[in-house]
Amino acid sequence: MLELLSEHACFGGVQRFYRHASAAIGLPMRFSVFLPPAAADAQPGQARPGLSRPGQAWPGLSRPGLFYLAGLTCNEETFAAKAGAQRVAAELGLMLVAPDTSPRGAAVAGEDAAWDFGLAAGFYLDASEAPWARHYRMYSYILELRELLVAELALDPARVGICGHSMGGHGALVLALRNPTLFRSLSALAPIAAPSLCPWGQKAFTGYLGADQAAWGRYDASLLMAGMKAPFPAGILVDQGLADKFLAEQLYPEVFEAACRSAGQPLQLRRHAGYDHGYYFVASFIEEHLRFHARNLGAA
Amino acid sequence: MLELLSEHACFGGVQRFYRHASAAIGLPMRFSVFLPPAAADAQPGQARPGLSRPGQAWPGLSRPGLFYLAGLTCNEETFAAKAGAQRVAAELGLMLVAPDTSPRGAAVAGEDAAWDFGLAAGFYLDASEAPWARHYRMYSYILELRELLVAELALDPARVGICGHSMGGHGALVLALRNPTLFRSLSALAPIAAPSLCPWGQKAFTGYLGADQAAWGRYDASLLMAGMKAPFPAGILVDQGLADKFLAEQLYPEVFEAACRSAGQPLQLRRHAGYDHGYYFVASFIEEHLRFHARNLGAA
Repeated sequence: MLELLSEHACFGGVQRFYRHASAAIGLPMRFSVFLPPAAADAQPGQARPGLSRPGQAWPGLSRPGLFYLAGLTCNEETFAAKAGAQRVAAELGLMLVAPDTSPRGAAVAGEDAAWDFGLAAGFYLDASEAPWARHYRMYSYILELRELLVAELALDPARVGICGHSMGGHGALVLALRNPTLFRSLSALAPIAAPSLCPWGQKAFTGYLGADQAAWGRYDASLLMAGMKAPFPAGILVDQGLADKFLAEQLYPEVFEAACRSAGQPLQLRRHAGYDHGYYFVASFIEEHLRFHARNLGAA
Repeated sequence: MLELLSEHACFGGVQRFYRHASAAIGLPMRFSVFLPPAAADAQPGQARPGLSRPGQAWPGLSRPGLFYLAGLTCNEETFAAKAGAQRVAAELGLMLVAPDTSPRGAAVAGEDAAWDFGLAAGFYLDASEAPWARHYRMYSYILELRELLVAELALDPARVGICGHSMGGHGALVLALRNPTLFRSLSALAPIAAPSLCPWGQKAFTGYLGADQAAWGRYDASLLMAGMKAPFPAGILVDQGLADKFLAEQLYPEVFEAACRSAGQPLQLRRHAGYDHGYYFVASFIEEHLRFHARNLGAA
């Protein structure tokens, strides 16, 4: 079910790259996973059948995990190679899961024409518009991947958090706000926080979901927050650099902040002077995100 | 003199990328430098003229620094992006300097034909053979860059260490053993430790230095060690992964170890089960290298 492409010892654990057939996408997909030291011997297929809950497949071995959704132009390797998160994940006993950012091989005409739409720009939504609707289903894919890791790599389904950067910050916010029992902890770095309002989001939503903005709200964190019946229980952590060249036009953290305030949602939005949008920013603050998630998940 | 190409806030300091005209190479060269928090405001050209020693240019601001020489196929960005060293460098107040791995733009016929010779494979030596001798002078370039950083970015000339990975580990060993007053601390990760004995080294030395092996010894760490008149004062730290696919054929740490033993050179050669040759290995152990250098340089 999981094809191991490569693995690398890392901080006493193991950084792996897998490929698998995705039902949601209808194509092979790749993801990376870091297994902390105590879980580094885990092999797919060792999960014992017949137990009532997948998370109990390896008694004593099931692990809390953090999904990290990457941004435009990235893939399943970016976070593993550039964020430097494995050190702290090893300490905390946290699995790290980083999926790719779009289908690969969908062969949709024009999918490689722009860096902010199509390949590596799946926006973590299920497209409804032709020709994207068949394979561009990253929202459902993230949920599928979560189940796959519970079944195959002993991810504890009760202790899964989600985090993301830029387009992936948008994805993390949307996935957790819509599925607060599946993702118990939520944070984001420089997220596209109000995609209906910004050029990246408007282009993606128009292309994938159509021009009718009524369909956009389910994939807009600020609009979702306005309609939340109850706060996201664990609170939300967001970091934003103030030298981020995309901040004014594309990210709109202040819109999400206002929506949280109106909804009574605890939000820690930290603004950092001098930091830009890239991985030197992500690397500088990822440790605090891991510790935030570990606390929320009871993993630390 | 230094052209700033980009800069990124990182762990309270700043990660910069520079271009400059190199006299040793005769072409523009690029390098990266991480300045820890207290030095992050430093700007080239602020060095005050007329002081007797360049290292005194900014009284109270001159900083210990660590050169990191990268391996085959890498460039000045690899270490900055993948090793995760800035966090500890920020804590220790250590500058990190990472040069490119060969001249760029030399326009030598065939320089891009192989991944282990020519472009991104300069082997940190001064070529004597045509057509390489004109620009392929990375040994002199590293010494030039050291002086440039002393003059322009307040690197303390009395507190400079050097480290490297693979081909860069070879470079670090050679540069420090030949210049122990310029580089006061020395370490390497999976270095090409006896290049005269391995295919990578034989190909490079034959191409750059000619077939006469008498000329090779000045660029072979194990041969240099055999001829050392006194041990390298601070001792040497080397890490080597035992799942490194290049270990048996290319690296020969045991030859360097034997040379150190014969020469009375203190060497800490640590062998790590399971670790391979890549940056997940480098990232896992770089913190201990930084702390080793900081101790040796009186910087911690």
